[in-house]
Amino acid sequence: MISRLFSFVGGDSGPWRVTTARACVGEDLPAVGRLQVVEGIADPVTQPFIWSLSGVTSNERYVERPEKTALVAKQQGLGRAEATHAALIPLRKTAAWWALTQDERRRIFEAKSRHIAIGLHYLPAIARKLHHCRDLGDAQPFDFLTWFEYAPGDTAAFESLLAALRESEEWTYVDREVDIRLVRE
Amino acid sequence: MISRLFSFVGGDSGPWRVTTARACVGEDLPAVGRLQVVEGIADPVTQPFIWSLSGVTSNERYVERPEKTALVAKQQGLGRAEATHAALIPLRKTAAWWALTQDERRRIFEAKSRHIAIGLHYLPAIARKLHHCRDLGDAQPFDFLTWFEYAPGDTAAFESLLAALRESEEWTYVDREVDIRLVRE
Repeated sequence: MISRLFSFVGGDSGPWRVTTARACVGEDLPAVGRLQVVEGIADPVTQPFIWSLSGVTSNERYVERPEKTALVAKQQGLGRAEATHAALIPLRKTAAWWALTQDERRRIFEAKSRHIAIGLHYLPAIARKLHHCRDLGDAQPFDFLTWFEYAPGDTAAFESLLAALRESEEWTYVDREVDIRLVRE
Repeated sequence: MISRLFSFVGGDSGPWRVTTARACVGEDLPAVGRLQVVEGIADPVTQPFIWSLSGVTSNERYVERPEKTALVAKQQGLGRAEATHAALIPLRKTAAWWALTQDERRRIFEAKSRHIAIGLHYLPAIARKLHHCRDLGDAQPFDFLTWFEYAPGDTAAFESLLAALRESEEWTYVDREVDIRLVRE
């Protein structure tokens, strides 16, 4: 397995307790009480689960150099002690999105929807890590899994970030989205 | 398994006979006599093989709309009766390539290396199909598998296409490349 592969494992164990979970667009996921993030693929024998969602971190698909420089300057990464709140947002985009060419997707993603600028605005408070699922060999229910971490005091900022993205033109291409909130305990 | 997953299976069976195989950059692959292309993952029990390389067809990573329009207008696709010659070119790029941002990779890929323009020049004679391996969950020895098909009379054109790409700045980021030629019989 590649070292960039991670699984988000929903069941009754793990350091993250699910506080709320809802489908925003399309089908929901079965309810779970707790979640853990593991490297590679979760083994259902050693660790029973209700669902396990896998994805790989990968090269940037839209970010350009000046944006990357700005992101790196502001971001702090996952695992901060104060970031006891998290969200897992699995998301799938439509066939129409994937049929667009690179320039068309970039234009919607950033020029029209300001996806990178919005994320940058909420750094370093809202840390995030994107995982790609669409090109894994095994069929996956989502195209992306985004994991967010933030301190309890930044909850309102996180809601603003999500609201801005969900209002964007890019989100008209989302045909499944689930929003799972968690606390570390 | 996703329907975009294909495997190139090298061994002693399959409709394609290997005529030559050589490593251009980096480590070679073990020699095989024949090759077949299968959907999904090859099962070594039902079909013994020496090696099997898998990849997925995916959305475009660099092609822009005017380029796509030009490509679609000229291309004819795989499986033409006269295209009895083929090549499988597995290729891996360096960590330095993958650390570049999207704009930097696009600039090298097309503005400097004319990758799309070179491919377009040899259409419809040289048909090709790109498969991505890098983001499969299982570790893969290559990042890309490109499959080419052409008529015997277009062999010189195919050599010109490869020579043009291999001279490009993009190819300075290639750290493993194997060139396998085949005939259908």
